[in-house]
Amino acid sequence: MTLSRRHLLAGGTLGAGAGAVAGGLGVASLRAAPAPPDTAADFGTATVAYHGPRQSGVTTEPPAHAAFVAFTLPAGTDRRALGRMMRLLSDDAARLTRGEPALGDTDAELAVLPARLTVTFGFGPGLYRAAGVKSPVTDLPAFRVDRLGPQWSGGDLLLQICAEDPLTVTHAQRMLIKDARPFAAVRWVQRGFRRSPGVQRTGFTQRNVLGQLDGTANPTGAVLDAAVWRPDGSTTLVLRRIRAEIEKWDLLSVGDKENAVGRRMISGAPLSGTNEHDEPDFAALDGSGLPSMPEHAHVTRAHVTEPALKILRRPYNYDEAPNAAGQPDSGLIFAAYQADIVRQYLPIQQRLAEKDLLNEWITPIGSAVFAIPPGCAASGWVGEEVLS
Amino acid sequence: MTLSRRHLLAGGTLGAGAGAVAGGLGVASLRAAPAPPDTAADFGTATVAYHGPRQSGVTTEPPAHAAFVAFTLPAGTDRRALGRMMRLLSDDAARLTRGEPALGDTDAELAVLPARLTVTFGFGPGLYRAAGVKSPVTDLPAFRVDRLGPQWSGGDLLLQICAEDPLTVTHAQRMLIKDARPFAAVRWVQRGFRRSPGVQRTGFTQRNVLGQLDGTANPTGAVLDAAVWRPDGSTTLVLRRIRAEIEKWDLLSVGDKENAVGRRMISGAPLSGTNEHDEPDFAALDGSGLPSMPEHAHVTRAHVTEPALKILRRPYNYDEAPNAAGQPDSGLIFAAYQADIVRQYLPIQQRLAEKDLLNEWITPIGSAVFAIPPGCAASGWVGEEVLS
Ligand code: HEM
Ligand code: HEM
Repeated sequence: MTLSRRHLLAGGTLGAGAGAVAGGLGVASLRAAPAPPDTAADFGTATVAYHGPRQSGVTTEPPAHAAFVAFTLPAGTDRRALGRMMRLLSDDAARLTRGEPALGDTDAELAVLPARLTVTFGFGPGLYRAAGVKSPVTDLPAFRVDRLGPQWSGGDLLLQICAEDPLTVTHAQRMLIKDARPFAAVRWVQRGFRRSPGVQRTGFTQRNVLGQLDGTANPTGAVLDAAVWRPDGSTTLVLRRIRAEIEKWDLLSVGDKENAVGRRMISGAPLSGTNEHDEPDFAALDGSGLPSMPEHAHVTRAHVTEPALKILRRPYNYDEAPNAAGQPDSGLIFAAYQADIVRQYLPIQQRLAEKDLLNEWITPIGSAVFAIPPGCAASGWVGEEVLS
Repeated sequence: MTLSRRHLLAGGTLGAGAGAVAGGLGVASLRAAPAPPDTAADFGTATVAYHGPRQSGVTTEPPAHAAFVAFTLPAGTDRRALGRMMRLLSDDAARLTRGEPALGDTDAELAVLPARLTVTFGFGPGLYRAAGVKSPVTDLPAFRVDRLGPQWSGGDLLLQICAEDPLTVTHAQRMLIKDARPFAAVRWVQRGFRRSPGVQRTGFTQRNVLGQLDGTANPTGAVLDAAVWRPDGSTTLVLRRIRAEIEKWDLLSVGDKENAVGRRMISGAPLSGTNEHDEPDFAALDGSGLPSMPEHAHVTRAHVTEPALKILRRPYNYDEAPNAAGQPDSGLIFAAYQADIVRQYLPIQQRLAEKDLLNEWITPIGSAVFAIPPGCAASGWVGEEVLS
């Protein structure tokens, strides 16, 4: 542990010169190296600002790779310990997202290509309990469709680590876990993916492992901002691990798949329209006088009209090893952000749990909720409002 | 199962028009769709030719994502069944690598962005046994350093699926497993990664999870061709799953890391030189009169002078979920290609098993060998020399 790290743990803030003594292999030596071979292309050196009134990684365009890492606090953790932990982790995140090694980074060479790295911190109800502060989030109620496993559920602290590059995520995850470890045990880790950078034009909707265009009706612009952010710069995250019953899904005709969702497989257009971004018309009737948008289709049930009640879905695919019979273990790490879980997320989830044609092919197997505290200034750290 | 697929299984070859009836959602309907939203960027539509005298995916520049899928044949599998299976799988591979759905593809929308997809078939000793043909490969002998688990070892058939995009790999893997399933059980699946496309300039050496530049001394050009390919277009693959003891590795100073390998961490230069591609000088002495390249460093032990005896290393990183204590489960899926395992691979592996400073931080936990049969013409299928 370097001197400046001790200083940090003791509660100090970091002066301008601190970077020079970073890690076993500091920034300085990285710069002095002859012909550094990490010759970055466009996506390699791109960064997303860490500091600011709101944390990054929420309304940030999702990059290709994500790790969601949840921790359990040991009994007896107090607010002071939490403050020490968050000072350290927030400093690590600030450096790593700039493409610099963390203090005491033991694999500093892996820090130089940030590839749009973001590190977003979430606080679970247990963290607030330990801090002696009222929690802004509470666990979701049980739903009829849930088949939750403890190995994917709950958590006192969450690190959401996203980047365009999987090795960047691996390195950031390793360094952050090392620094969190004296304070908390790893509860679960979920890795997920979207399209690689440059495979599809940015701003276009991506497909998920079920082949559906996923993200079409997400709010944007001012509606997005109002739906997600509270005035203090905080928000909340519901994270559900949802297994897709791909084997059964694969038995469906294209028409049946489209009926279950209410949108076309190829174009993503609502069944009442022709283009992806046509507003679904829930009053439209088809040739036989039935609603074009089936009453129990996923989109019909999930649809929200009022802007302030929308949620931001930021899902990642997962695809673990299939079993010996070759059946996939695949689905979504479904991440939903909203200012208020009870007002925004819960009514949608309740309608879907009650009736949604898609339920036959999806099963929630994990669930967790986190408050996403506000971002911080360069002189501060994430969590300072709650923990200092 | 569509008509043309039955035709295929019955042993027919595919005429020009076959593509039109492909899948539940054919190529034709994909083309007719209004404004298809899979708006490819550069890496999305790029393809690698499937047909040719040699299989792709070997001397092809490795893309970002790989799945290695090994199968076990049930007792009683005969050459005719193997021929039926390989006709089907080779046809799937030919279509998928072009960015077209497989015949009967149940998620055809996921086929349209090939992203440099390659599918490479490997035959294990058991496949040749089943076919009643002498195997060109035999299992490796046991090495002192091995801690092999059956869950990562052996296999009668291998599919190596590589692409720049993880969703493309997921889809190809799912379709190929579905078609292989009537003939064979999934034995193990290993997913690995390298840098995302566009994160680092192509042609430059990448780092592995240990932070090392990995691939520097790989043969290129005519030396590569001669070392890897046999006259008939075949080659062989040794696949080792090698766990990295990252926790212990992280305790080392940069100098100790460099000593273990014989190359600098930042530049990749041999300890006897200054630039990455300087030839290591094993006779050079340092200031204190000791060899600059430590006698038992990985590179010193692994080095091969004779061009024909070199091997092609094409490793992928893996990084599975850490345990509750936060210790990583990370390492390399080490893939080595060479014309002859006994002449080329074994001597290197034996020297390394006997003495290699790096052994303290790496542990082989899986091992398998496969013959890579020649490629095929557009009218043929991979494996036809052995199985028809
Ligand atoms: C594996 C699970 C799920 C899958 C595969 C899935 C898939 C989809 C698809 C294909 C669409 C239409 C395109 C789009 O607007 O993105 C959609 C829309 C939507 N989904 Fe889901 N979804 C899943 C779970 C959920 C959950 C758990 C919720 C919330 C509790 C949810 C809420 C919504 C909402 C609000 C919309 C937009 C509806 C509208 O206003 O048009 N989804 N989903
Ligand atoms: C986790 C396991 C391993 C790691 C981390 C590793 C790492 C490295 C590194 C950093 C280099 C120097 C840079 C380069 O030329 O690529 C290297 C070179 C090499 N390695 Fe490995 N290696 C591993 C396993 C193996 C195995 C199993 C073999 C073969 C049995 C092997 C054979 C070689 C060869 C032939 C060279 C080039 C030596 C030369 O001619 O300069 N390595 N390896």
